[in-house]
Amino acid sequence: MKLASLKQGRDGRLIVVSDDLSTYVDASAIAPTLQAALDDWSVIEPKLKALADDLATGAVASQPLDAAALAAPLPRAYQWADGSAYVNHVELVRQARGAELPDSFWHDPLVYQGGSDRFLGPRDAIPLADESWGCDMEAEVVVVTGDVPQGVSPEEARGLIRLVGLVNDVSLRNLIPGELAKGFGFYQSKPASALSPVFVTPDTLGDRWQDGKLHGALNVDLNGHPFGRADAGVDMTFDFGTLIAHLAKTRSLGAGTIVGSGTVSNRDADGGPGRPVADGGLGYSCIAELRMVETIRDGAPATPFLKYGDTVRIWMEDDNGHAIFGTIDQKVEAI
Amino acid sequence: MKLASLKQGRDGRLIVVSDDLSTYVDASAIAPTLQAALDDWSVIEPKLKALADDLATGAVASQPLDAAALAAPLPRAYQWADGSAYVNHVELVRQARGAELPDSFWHDPLVYQGGSDRFLGPRDAIPLADESWGCDMEAEVVVVTGDVPQGVSPEEARGLIRLVGLVNDVSLRNLIPGELAKGFGFYQSKPASALSPVFVTPDTLGDRWQDGKLHGALNVDLNGHPFGRADAGVDMTFDFGTLIAHLAKTRSLGAGTIVGSGTVSNRDADGGPGRPVADGGLGYSCIAELRMVETIRDGAPATPFLKYGDTVRIWMEDDNGHAIFGTIDQKVEAI
Repeated sequence: MKLASLKQGRDGRLIVVSDDLSTYVDASAIAPTLQAALDDWSVIEPKLKALADDLATGAVASQPLDAAALAAPLPRAYQWADGSAYVNHVELVRQARGAELPDSFWHDPLVYQGGSDRFLGPRDAIPLADESWGCDMEAEVVVVTGDVPQGVSPEEARGLIRLVGLVNDVSLRNLIPGELAKGFGFYQSKPASALSPVFVTPDTLGDRWQDGKLHGALNVDLNGHPFGRADAGVDMTFDFGTLIAHLAKTRSLGAGTIVGSGTVSNRDADGGPGRPVADGGLGYSCIAELRMVETIRDGAPATPFLKYGDTVRIWMEDDNGHAIFGTIDQKVEAI
Repeated sequence: MKLASLKQGRDGRLIVVSDDLSTYVDASAIAPTLQAALDDWSVIEPKLKALADDLATGAVASQPLDAAALAAPLPRAYQWADGSAYVNHVELVRQARGAELPDSFWHDPLVYQGGSDRFLGPRDAIPLADESWGCDMEAEVVVVTGDVPQGVSPEEARGLIRLVGLVNDVSLRNLIPGELAKGFGFYQSKPASALSPVFVTPDTLGDRWQDGKLHGALNVDLNGHPFGRADAGVDMTFDFGTLIAHLAKTRSLGAGTIVGSGTVSNRDADGGPGRPVADGGLGYSCIAELRMVETIRDGAPATPFLKYGDTVRIWMEDDNGHAIFGTIDQKVEAI
């Protein structure tokens, strides 16, 4: 089942979307918003699935889907907790600045609490006030949880994953060093992120959803050129069950909590950092990683961060070449 | 005007409370929840104020208020951003571990993104799985904003403060060093916080609300004994307008964003760290601060963190000795 939210009010209007994303049916009579559905999932999910079945068989009237009419599936959420599950990425960050990666990073997940009061729609511009802030995309996988009790195990946590999707976790790279040096984590350096057009239930993903990981190439295009083709199921040190269990160690998590994987990152076939797609590699899911590779290789970064007018596309295809979650397609715009 | 939420469902049921907190009237016909009121404040606030006037004059039937029936005014929120506006507190933290306070800390606010998917009610237990985590209270002032545009000035931001209240920002002190060492800020070390019984509009506060600061003694009792009497309007380096402007530098803030002051902390009359209330000082708003003073004075902390069965009370009184925001009154319980 694939769910989305039409732009309406602060929380959108819940719709069920066809598997190929071509059509939709209004679901607001079942639950007005996706958050409302998540709040009462055991009751609402079967009704939405029945509607999805009717949509698939043509038993209910449908309308053509226009991605530009979509808000983020959750236009605002009560929690956005982002991990750094691809430790390869973290190791590169450290390597580029000449720092060792502590061994604990391979066993103890790194997470931060992000801002969840506003998520951008999949076609919304990335609003940027100052190019010198070093705006970057970060292509990631996200899951949405039901109510998660404190102290849950990784295995139990996997069973509490309601939906899977993608995010462009926008980062302001040049604000990060100063902010992290203050010791309390990110705030100004993490503006609003964009979510994929649709979120899907794990059962819809078939073999692509295994062991709490999403498998398949996460496509990232920058200004129309292939930038990243890393596999989200490869080099993910901590699966989503492990990330959720880490988050729930000292507190419960409310239904509708969005948990991020961190920037997807694959090692190269030779074990080194990835090569650009143009050089036959799998590329990168953020500009910073390419800049780190450039720094390690050449002593300095060469690729600039995002400028006004730059475009970013993020999507994952099914075996038929259809975008499973739709496509995040954003342009950087001055505000 | 004083607003609160009766325990009901995930978001509570909005009520208007009398100035002395003795009675209330249901306001859910005007807006079902406080978040719904904040989402449409310009339309809803006048209606709530009219109801508050009717409550004050007896023109509407009221019911006796039982604080135990109250949820947090916002049982869940879309954002909880906590500052460290009392730099005296930050300086003590540093001093206790022999670190210098960078001069920038006096000019550049320190904030972190906290978890907002669950706030405890004012009489709810503090649920603690492990005493060795070093559970501590932190008595703070909070404000709730309307929609805040990106790039707002401190002066404009002050005009976007809708409500004022108190919080017990529960912290797990012994988890903080390891978590901050990882570089991404707090997560496991900051479980759910408790909010005061009522939130009030700034106009209700009279002279106590000036220049974006709440003035008056913030009372903290630990196990029935006076622990803190620091004035929230003193030694607050960054007023709430400045904190909000800092938060909104790179993004907008959604209506219902809760912004915290950080632990209230006053210097002693001689300019040094505060003395305990029993010694004639203004005491502390968290145990950690007393432990830092003990460390600076005696070489080691003596006061333990919270244990099962310990009680914490936090309140601020008006000129008549009434608790303006009601009283946060919690017991630490094993879960």
